Amino acid sequence: MGLGNPQETCLKAGILRDYTPTSSLKVVAMELSPDWVVGFTDGEGCFFVGINRNPSTSVGYQVLPEFVIVQHKRDIQVLYALKRFFRCGVVRPNHDDRYAYRVRDLQGLRKVRDFFLKHPLKTKKRIDFLRFNRILTMMERGDHLKLDGLLEIVQIALRMNTGNRPQLEQVAAEIKQRLQAG
Amino acid sequence: MGLGNPQETCLKAGILRDYTPTSSLKVVAMELSPDWVVGFTDGEGCFFVGINRNPSTSVGYQVLPEFVIVQHKRDIQVLYALKRFFRCGVVRPNHDDRYAYRVRDLQGLRKVRDFFLKHPLKTKKRIDFLRFNRILTMMERGDHLKLDGLLEIVQIALRMNTGNRPQLEQVAAEIKQRLQAG
Repeated sequence: MGLGNPQETCLKAGILRDYTPTSSLKVVAMELSPDWVVGFTDGEGCFFVGINRNPSTSVGYQVLPEFVIVQHKRDIQVLYALKRFFRCGVVRPNHDDRYAYRVRDLQGLRKVRDFFLKHPLKTKKRIDFLRFNRILTMMERGDHLKLDGLLEIVQIALRMNTGNRPQLEQVAAEIKQRLQAG
Repeated sequence: MGLGNPQETCLKAGILRDYTPTSSLKVVAMELSPDWVVGFTDGEGCFFVGINRNPSTSVGYQVLPEFVIVQHKRDIQVLYALKRFFRCGVVRPNHDDRYAYRVRDLQGLRKVRDFFLKHPLKTKKRIDFLRFNRILTMMERGDHLKLDGLLEIVQIALRMNTGNRPQLEQVAAEIKQRLQAG
């Protein structure tokens, strides 16, 4: 994945080259406004909570919340501009010709959460965000490290996005069984 | 497509019901800012130019530019808010569970054009918009009513969006043949 040539490096820096009529080279950083970021996230953003099996944790599962925006590689400069806007996250290759801006660390997710609490989404994605926020708050309290807290998190995650996650249903069933077995 | 019950009527009016803690009912119109509209269009908007066979026109083809935003029906209130924002266009059912906000008339498209000239898109969709604008300008001059102007419009349309339009390639080939035949 070569990002070494000048054009791609510029893109990587979230910068657009703009040739003026005098043919002098003007380098313009892409400035994003809060409202643009809300509108773009209403369209393209995703608040997702993954649950992975992980035997090294006390409950056997790891909760992985993430905020992600995927774009075709032609718009990689927008992803880098988002990274600069939120001052967190990473831009990485995704499937095919796509790149993703992704925030996974708790410190970064707090910045994202604070932003969308202050600047609410307009679409029904707002409801996913509020569920996401609820899971983050539970994780900050350490609820994900206890079986009953984990079950509640899984049940909230099942109501997010399309809700079509058969593997996560399976995880919920397993945790319920373990809780019943005491 | 029943839009008669109170909840759906509210959605149709682009209005969100917001229950306050005192359980009194507050009706809030969804207010869109220009930057939100730009961000949302960067994510979800489409500038499209259709070319239809139409024997009743002088050149045998009709040029149909449109600005369209499609959403799941759960976000129909955003589409009505866009209609109020641009003061033009219609909201209509689309495929499956989806609705579309669509602007097709020239007067409405001029409003949309003026807005995006004043508030530029941030993604590469800006390039599609500029091509769309060029086609609109040509249509205002009547270029689409002459065979050579129509060919230029078709060639611009072929460079828009994904560019994968075999039927439009066919139209371009037909027009070229007619131009060569004099």
